[in-house]
Amino acid sequence: MIKAEIVSVGTELLLGQILDTNAQTLALVLAECGIGCQRRTTIGDNLSRIQSGLEEALSRCEIVFTIGGLGPTGDDLTREGIAAALGDRLIESAEVREGLIAFFESRNIPMVESNLKQALRPESARLIENPNGTAPGLICEKNGKVIIAMPGPPNEFNPMVTGPVKAYLGEYIAKRSDQEQAVVIHSRTLRVIGVGESSAEAQIQSLMAMENPTVAPYAKVGEVHLRISARASSISAANELIDPVEAEIRSILGHAVYGVDEESLAYAVVSALKWRGQSVSTAESITGGGIGSELTSVAGSSVVYPGGVITYSVDSKVEQLGIDRALIDRHGPVSPEVAAAMAIRCRARFGTDWAVSATGNAGPTADIDEKPVGLVYLAVAGQNGVKVQELKLRGLRETIRARAAHSALAMLRDALLP
Amino acid sequence: MIKAEIVSVGTELLLGQILDTNAQTLALVLAECGIGCQRRTTIGDNLSRIQSGLEEALSRCEIVFTIGGLGPTGDDLTREGIAAALGDRLIESAEVREGLIAFFESRNIPMVESNLKQALRPESARLIENPNGTAPGLICEKNGKVIIAMPGPPNEFNPMVTGPVKAYLGEYIAKRSDQEQAVVIHSRTLRVIGVGESSAEAQIQSLMAMENPTVAPYAKVGEVHLRISARASSISAANELIDPVEAEIRSILGHAVYGVDEESLAYAVVSALKWRGQSVSTAESITGGGIGSELTSVAGSSVVYPGGVITYSVDSKVEQLGIDRALIDRHGPVSPEVAAAMAIRCRARFGTDWAVSATGNAGPTADIDEKPVGLVYLAVAGQNGVKVQELKLRGLRETIRARAAHSALAMLRDALLP
Repeated sequence: MIKAEIVSVGTELLLGQILDTNAQTLALVLAECGIGCQRRTTIGDNLSRIQSGLEEALSRCEIVFTIGGLGPTGDDLTREGIAAALGDRLIESAEVREGLIAFFESRNIPMVESNLKQALRPESARLIENPNGTAPGLICEKNGKVIIAMPGPPNEFNPMVTGPVKAYLGEYIAKRSDQEQAVVIHSRTLRVIGVGESSAEAQIQSLMAMENPTVAPYAKVGEVHLRISARASSISAANELIDPVEAEIRSILGHAVYGVDEESLAYAVVSALKWRGQSVSTAESITGGGIGSELTSVAGSSVVYPGGVITYSVDSKVEQLGIDRALIDRHGPVSPEVAAAMAIRCRARFGTDWAVSATGNAGPTADIDEKPVGLVYLAVAGQNGVKVQELKLRGLRETIRARAAHSALAMLRDALLP
Repeated sequence: MIKAEIVSVGTELLLGQILDTNAQTLALVLAECGIGCQRRTTIGDNLSRIQSGLEEALSRCEIVFTIGGLGPTGDDLTREGIAAALGDRLIESAEVREGLIAFFESRNIPMVESNLKQALRPESARLIENPNGTAPGLICEKNGKVIIAMPGPPNEFNPMVTGPVKAYLGEYIAKRSDQEQAVVIHSRTLRVIGVGESSAEAQIQSLMAMENPTVAPYAKVGEVHLRISARASSISAANELIDPVEAEIRSILGHAVYGVDEESLAYAVVSALKWRGQSVSTAESITGGGIGSELTSVAGSSVVYPGGVITYSVDSKVEQLGIDRALIDRHGPVSPEVAAAMAIRCRARFGTDWAVSATGNAGPTADIDEKPVGLVYLAVAGQNGVKVQELKLRGLRETIRARAAHSALAMLRDALLP
């Protein structure tokens, strides 16, 4: 496998003023091309640090990509850094120089002299056209190594990496006579709920020892994602490797696997309801509309979800759902009794097959009810009665609310399982 | 200036499957503390590469931060990599071990043996408590260098870096007697709505030429953020430089500035309602609970927000809000008439001073109503009647829904302005 590294250049990246989305875009392209990216480095606008970062990367791998630092200002030093790392002189491209002058004339902007530095290139470089900006990209082949330099603005970077750079990489791989059959890396993610990361891992231990496809678990809020990644000569060949592994994981984890790739938990719930020809309504306190918002994020959910009620105050629980005020006084709004009553009354009011409710204290402080922060009661009401679940959640207000909504959907999904 | 580097660990980062937002968060904290971050490296889940990455970083700087790889699985190798780089043995913390066992017992989840690896630490390490997860952080001081390791899940990482790690860094800097005059970079963000990025930029042009503080605009969904950043010897000195610039921007942009730093639009609305001693309820169709969820994300919002109703289907608009079915038949559910009726009926039903409603087509396809995707009607009802606003939004379903909820809050804020 051809090895590569990415060097992002820019002090604004090191200061955290900009999020490096370009490096992610490039990493995805490399994975698709079957090029192994083993390290990513971010360096500030400093010539000697850029030079040594590039020299180190060249010592470890075959292709080094740089992002950023090709612009006209004194801070843009990637061009100089590459020349220094390769032992190249910088030479001027007459064509780029003329293009720059024409560009500024056509826009009626006076050209600052420093702009002409964008016409310079290390002598081993060829230029990559940049129709979306003034700085061309660079491809430098020297001593069996390659440096590919791209500009930082995403509207210039993205078309360059997915266009000419990806095309160059395809040719490069094809040309490499010592190169084994072309390789893509393709992944499929199984979404698992109700099983902890380490327990999921223990159950599929034998699969995790495999080398192709690989299986790796990722902990997410309230769930685990298992990513199956295959190396193969094409995406369809990769899928043929992935299919039996998916089948085996499903046979081990059963209903704990609720979705694939982008299929959310709400999608699984809406699908199950559609399949059963049933409907659900929501009665929300702590989540304040978060459960409804999740359900309606699924296109076509109106068939199974007519709506719900947000009863954030005690008064609204009494007035909107007709819950007995004495019940709330006796047990407090954060109680299994109130959660159950909310679901039962909501189901009756909306005439749905199911109703789900959530009440709790999201913090940051214990409120009038004096129940601890993170205490949540969920209820699911159906034709056979109501079930209540208690959660003791930790974390920030937003985390507690998101987990409560997520758990409510999980509880509803459980109720819908065959 | 104290020099630091950040090492992010995770194959999923190298493959581009995850965007490294944690490194940005940490970089911002370091800038605030006046610690110079000169390099950031991303390495996969590979022990020898983690070890050599850490050794290289330690050779260049004083403090090395690691992010990720502290979990319970076989892929989580940061703990081992740190021990190897420092020449430390791994020893077990009895306290963490007991905590892990108690954690799984309290949740009634069977604990897999591999979880206990989270109780291991390099012998020079002290532990950083992690109330949001099972893996504690680590601070290793050895041979005049420091390695600080933090877990990767953002809901664990963020509170740890802004809490105990930032506090540790403050003490560390204070202790360093050879420390030259400290320099911090401190920022304040003004959140602006109802003005485009280039228009905001044009209005504050003269301020954008300043060198300290600097003013930079960032385009966000439906709004613009203006970041004022100052370099000074302390945060309070930086704030003294920032204060007059904020005042000048406010005098130019007026009410378009709705919040500072983390103050969301919902926070601005809740604050305005509190200040006026008024309340609001919500009637949501297209947003499906998103407006209520935004309002209740603000702690203490129950004082001004008793709740609302989600009327996603036509039937629920009729049955839950008492809207005339003939009105819906005549104009369609996505119409200014229905938006207005939803807000008016909701206000009456909840007895609130205000009510806000949203109806529209989020796509992906034009539905039974045959209104185009992205067409949204918002309404705000108050004691002086109802106002309706039409939006024609573009983008994915989730983008349209999020912008509709955001615009509804903006419309409500407009109604509440003095």
